[in-house]
Amino acid sequence: MAKEHKDRKIVLASGVFDLLHLGHVKFLEEAKKTGGKNAELLVIIARDSTVEKTKGRKPIMSENQRRALVESLKVVDKAVLGFEDFDIQDVIAKIKPDVIALGHDQAEMERQVRKYVDEHNLNIRVVRIGKFEDDALDSSSKIRQRIMANFDG
Amino acid sequence: MAKEHKDRKIVLASGVFDLLHLGHVKFLEEAKKTGGKNAELLVIIARDSTVEKTKGRKPIMSENQRRALVESLKVVDKAVLGFEDFDIQDVIAKIKPDVIALGHDQAEMERQVRKYVDEHNLNIRVVRIGKFEDDALDSSSKIRQRIMANFDG
Repeated sequence: MAKEHKDRKIVLASGVFDLLHLGHVKFLEEAKKTGGKNAELLVIIARDSTVEKTKGRKPIMSENQRRALVESLKVVDKAVLGFEDFDIQDVIAKIKPDVIALGHDQAEMERQVRKYVDEHNLNIRVVRIGKFEDDALDSSSKIRQRIMANFDG
Repeated sequence: MAKEHKDRKIVLASGVFDLLHLGHVKFLEEAKKTGGKNAELLVIIARDSTVEKTKGRKPIMSENQRRALVESLKVVDKAVLGFEDFDIQDVIAKIKPDVIALGHDQAEMERQVRKYVDEHNLNIRVVRIGKFEDDALDSSSKIRQRIMANFDG
């Protein structure tokens, strides 16, 4: 069974994915690459309630919209809604990922994940994916700002 | 050659696809279905200049972003930028589609396409895809409105 598992590595990524843009897709593509050929990319979509707690405002798109849209991307094998109370222990136990990929804006989550993986001596690679700077609209907040600016003008 | 062509029907859809949402994906999925099994879905992305001319404002996302994002969807086989001066004759001559699928908000383009197909006695199905009303955020203008509302609140 261990061998079978090795044939197809599971890469786990997570995020809000509100106002989907090319930066999201590139992050997910780079994340999947870290699992090698035939990797399976599973994405956890942050719940509306979690986003409201951490960012102080609801996402523009509902969690169901965000999940379905992310799963409609070629690069994504499966997208699931996160736990109401995100707990890295539950996620690792349930999904058993080979790689956990974190985005440029997920420093705090990276810290938590690395701590947990180290403490439990788990065979999980933790990788940080860089930011993509090749286009002006590579973040949801920039897109919101552009919409606001256009409305005023 | 005609037989070979029949094996995989080409469905052509087009649009702006600014602020990608689930309504876009559902439209493209329904469009592809009209070509039967193994259909190939080709999507023409409206140029920034064309959008500015017809809507009086630039899209939020650039044409390159919109094209790349649409092509990253599972349902889409290929996405290309439109001609600066959209001309249905050029498009049909170049792509030779079996089906042209039009969205709920493309009444004028449907009229033009049907007229051209009838006048030239072409063997092209023209289909209109309905609107999807099952979620509140199924249009780019509603998403913009929600962003504005959140900003005020």
